[in-house]
Amino acid sequence: MHSKNIQFALFVISLLCVTEKGTAQLPEGITHSGLKTGQPQFPMETYMELPNPTATPSALWEQKKRNKVSWGNTYTRYKKEEPAPVDKTKSLINLSAWKGERVSAQFIVSAYKKPIQLSFEVSDLVHHKNSSQKIDKSNIFSGFVRYVMTDELNKDGKGGCGQRNLTEFDSTLVADPIDHLTKVLAVPQNTSRPGWIRIWVPQNTKAGKYTGTVKIKDGNNVIEKLKLSVSVSDRILPAPENWNFHLDLWQNPYAAARYYQTELWSDAHFKTMEHDIQHYVNAGGKSITASIMNKPWNGQTQDPFQSMITWKRKINGSWEFGFDAFDKWVEFMMEMGVTKQINCYSMVPWRLSFEYFDEASNEMKTIETQPGEEAYAEMWGAMLTAFSEHLKKKGWFKKTYISMDERPMEVMQKTIKVIKAADKDFKISFAGGKHPEIFNEIDDYCLSLNESFPEEVKEKRQQEGKISTFYTSCSQASPNSFTFSPPAETEWYGWYAAAQNMDGYLRWAYASWVLEPLLDSRFTTWAAGDTYFVYPGGRTSIRFEKLLAGIQAYEKIQILREEFRSSNNQKALDKLEESLQLFDRKNLNDIPASEVVKKANMTINSF
Amino acid sequence: MHSKNIQFALFVISLLCVTEKGTAQLPEGITHSGLKTGQPQFPMETYMELPNPTATPSALWEQKKRNKVSWGNTYTRYKKEEPAPVDKTKSLINLSAWKGERVSAQFIVSAYKKPIQLSFEVSDLVHHKNSSQKIDKSNIFSGFVRYVMTDELNKDGKGGCGQRNLTEFDSTLVADPIDHLTKVLAVPQNTSRPGWIRIWVPQNTKAGKYTGTVKIKDGNNVIEKLKLSVSVSDRILPAPENWNFHLDLWQNPYAAARYYQTELWSDAHFKTMEHDIQHYVNAGGKSITASIMNKPWNGQTQDPFQSMITWKRKINGSWEFGFDAFDKWVEFMMEMGVTKQINCYSMVPWRLSFEYFDEASNEMKTIETQPGEEAYAEMWGAMLTAFSEHLKKKGWFKKTYISMDERPMEVMQKTIKVIKAADKDFKISFAGGKHPEIFNEIDDYCLSLNESFPEEVKEKRQQEGKISTFYTSCSQASPNSFTFSPPAETEWYGWYAAAQNMDGYLRWAYASWVLEPLLDSRFTTWAAGDTYFVYPGGRTSIRFEKLLAGIQAYEKIQILREEFRSSNNQKALDKLEESLQLFDRKNLNDIPASEVVKKANMTINSF
Repeated sequence: MHSKNIQFALFVISLLCVTEKGTAQLPEGITHSGLKTGQPQFPMETYMELPNPTATPSALWEQKKRNKVSWGNTYTRYKKEEPAPVDKTKSLINLSAWKGERVSAQFIVSAYKKPIQLSFEVSDLVHHKNSSQKIDKSNIFSGFVRYVMTDELNKDGKGGCGQRNLTEFDSTLVADPIDHLTKVLAVPQNTSRPGWIRIWVPQNTKAGKYTGTVKIKDGNNVIEKLKLSVSVSDRILPAPENWNFHLDLWQNPYAAARYYQTELWSDAHFKTMEHDIQHYVNAGGKSITASIMNKPWNGQTQDPFQSMITWKRKINGSWEFGFDAFDKWVEFMMEMGVTKQINCYSMVPWRLSFEYFDEASNEMKTIETQPGEEAYAEMWGAMLTAFSEHLKKKGWFKKTYISMDERPMEVMQKTIKVIKAADKDFKISFAGGKHPEIFNEIDDYCLSLNESFPEEVKEKRQQEGKISTFYTSCSQASPNSFTFSPPAETEWYGWYAAAQNMDGYLRWAYASWVLEPLLDSRFTTWAAGDTYFVYPGGRTSIRFEKLLAGIQAYEKIQILREEFRSSNNQKALDKLEESLQLFDRKNLNDIPASEVVKKANMTINSF
Repeated sequence: MHSKNIQFALFVISLLCVTEKGTAQLPEGITHSGLKTGQPQFPMETYMELPNPTATPSALWEQKKRNKVSWGNTYTRYKKEEPAPVDKTKSLINLSAWKGERVSAQFIVSAYKKPIQLSFEVSDLVHHKNSSQKIDKSNIFSGFVRYVMTDELNKDGKGGCGQRNLTEFDSTLVADPIDHLTKVLAVPQNTSRPGWIRIWVPQNTKAGKYTGTVKIKDGNNVIEKLKLSVSVSDRILPAPENWNFHLDLWQNPYAAARYYQTELWSDAHFKTMEHDIQHYVNAGGKSITASIMNKPWNGQTQDPFQSMITWKRKINGSWEFGFDAFDKWVEFMMEMGVTKQINCYSMVPWRLSFEYFDEASNEMKTIETQPGEEAYAEMWGAMLTAFSEHLKKKGWFKKTYISMDERPMEVMQKTIKVIKAADKDFKISFAGGKHPEIFNEIDDYCLSLNESFPEEVKEKRQQEGKISTFYTSCSQASPNSFTFSPPAETEWYGWYAAAQNMDGYLRWAYASWVLEPLLDSRFTTWAAGDTYFVYPGGRTSIRFEKLLAGIQAYEKIQILREEFRSSNNQKALDKLEESLQLFDRKNLNDIPASEVVKKANMTINSF
């Protein structure tokens, strides 16, 4: 990670030096709301947040005379305009971790008395009983929690779907991005600023309690020393590449190319994406998202997906396909560590309109056709035949899924015919409605959280090596991963998958960035944050770190179940399963996700 | 010609039979004026003209009791709603021709008394003194003169340029298309209908006078027998492929593909074009029009030119060009008989915007760049290098001209640099303003009729084998080839070229058809007929036949000059040159073109 960080910093510097005058000349940014950002587009090393639309509650700031620094918890999005809601200053925190696990803590600084030039330093963590045993600080990631503009659920409280007139929704700043690139941040008087610390316990760590300090500084002065300890258990969480959880977050290299102002598939393009994709890799991301025709979702993101495969109709009427971009993208993702599968969208795009380069007229042309029609079968038959051949040559055929989402069953059936006619061994994935008629034919089936596979279907699918997952989208009010969603809700997913014996989770947008994702998470459609989990510059987020926590819980539960079963420890098994009972989507209205996950975490860390 | 006619008829029949029900299902046509045509698009074998917007002058029709059939002259566009303005019925006409020449006559039928089901039959022409000598009727082309909607010059009378709001201009039917496909035509009472007869005197015809008849029929009844004689002189006009006149009428295969509803560059596409291009070949057309980038004229025609060369930018940033369409088009035109040169448009299109297929994103992208810029030089350098190599392989390099039109001189100079850098031997053509600075560098230079080359430049260019021609466009009120222009004006061009010692004539549109070219010659810009000379279905026009007459005159003058010079017949030479003095564009306001060309024709046919 370190050498990559340096490479990335060099890349950023090179970008900022492209103009002759040696100064940054990037155009000024503007958000979807039409708000000028006051700084260049594509702010990299550091940036200013948008002005806070919420008035400062002055009364809250009159209670204390001195600035406050305290540990908080990781389930709270602390408000910028309010002092930390911490009754008593907490200067010591204890975390529990398995070897190989990542655990996080959040501190918060409130500037009651005067502004602070905030920075902080984390020390190595030292074993309580053997000071030669350490968790080196190179394993500790940290950053400021930053504030991004968000909105809210639809007015009926039922979700976040549909076109959004930004003026109709409440705008607030919300704590979400975790900014490891900014090293010093001004905290104006009467505002708060959280910091995030994540320890990735090395697998070879000796069990025991490790303690270190976090020095909080105002300029050169240390204003507080927070104590941080991690109790490392004897159990081992495998490295992410060995996790079972099937995580499928759709990547969007087109958004990265636009945001970083790099040429698509250029070295610079891939270089910029490394840090963003690394979070997906570190969370055990399993699936590479590939687009095999233009605009599979008819442009539901700021940057629509183009085809990674070129479509050309020759003068003689035959088809020719080019796989150069596809290969580059897949190879990059595999080198990054996402190697399990390639999901290819889409034979049934949301608008049944297919673009190709027409050799006769040197222009793009469009065929409007649909599954069941001859033109459709001819075009896709040619494509899939060429694709199958290419994939086999690359050794990728068995990893590749022809993917569709949210289409009616009859359409799916007609499409499956065309796929199997081209190559009967093509795998198929589908994210959408519950269609028992095609359970058997879909190798990777993802249902909405609102629906469930029958138990026997789930078991049969598992026996046959078929993947069964669930997804959330704008349809769910909660749990969800909007920038205003309670952070525990993304952790809830992993626990829910474990409780339901499902294989994993899918979301349609990993980093389909809006215009200025660091500053304003709102988009022209969907509730804010729907289109991305992580932020530019390789910045993670509270939402994403909590998603990761849930996946770790899933893996830990698998290991504990296996252990308890093989040791016939029925009591522990019962205790474990009981703790999972709470992960029922019907409960979410009554018990906040944070309560449920805290309780369940206590249970599995008690073993 | 005959076997081609049959092929073409078969093609038309196949087109009409494409629907399952075996009946024509072509959509109904609509003209640029929004007028529904009342018949399928792409009317082929026959069609109905649009309703006549001009009221019938009833008084004129009350003078006579019986229908009138008479020879007229070929310089008059007879009106549909008026009786033939022929004082005395003329039933014998005498034409003069060289061997190998084409000469025409026009008859007119006026239905004073009752409607006529008009058809006509032309006999062989028989030698006066030796009845075994004949001009076989297979050498006689004939058709009805049809009426097409036209408009008029701009209101200031100064030309026909600019956007046109069709309601602001007078709409009239005008006699122009010559329809050889319709064999019987209803002539309603109180309307007139002309017919056109053209004799292509075979080169091996014995000199002398030949006479035949034209039987004019109403249904099965012969209502008139017109007599037609041709006096064939001893002189020989060479076949068109051996003519010197440099005729350059820009072809538009994109218009043909749209009009005939054929796939671009398909066999059917080429098959339909054969009959339309044949007129150009028979007039000695010298230049093949090729488009080497998309929309060289930014869409000034109903069907914009696309690039016949595919432009592809690969992921690695290099360029790749495809020549399949270009090759097919050039080979077709050469097989048709246009073999002298290929003019390639355009490195300096009217909008400096260049489209290419972007392999990275599977879409067309646009570069905005201009001569003098690095991106321009890089892009065109790559293209011209590949093009030069391809042309040499095909053996076409020496025939190929990189062509530009109507661009400022400085732009031209920068462009020439790029061309010569790619291959110093590339030929260059230009149609536009008078730039003495580049006279030397342009191998094929075409000036507007309003300008002239200095005499010494013209001579120098001729010695160096460079081509010097002139063009007319919407800028000229007269002479011109609008559908309402006096027919003699297109004949005037050939005479003018001879008088000026120029090499030929260029026009920017041979058959850039409007929506319904047979019915309505008006377009959204320019005066009606500006965009095409010939009509679909291989139909010629009065304008085009007169253009041909002028070109024949040019060739005859060259031959006579040569003959008189080599025989030192100064008297004849003076008489000839004197007759050409009248072809001065300043005279056109005072003496109609028809007077001038009639007089000059009498002179050269008197030798």
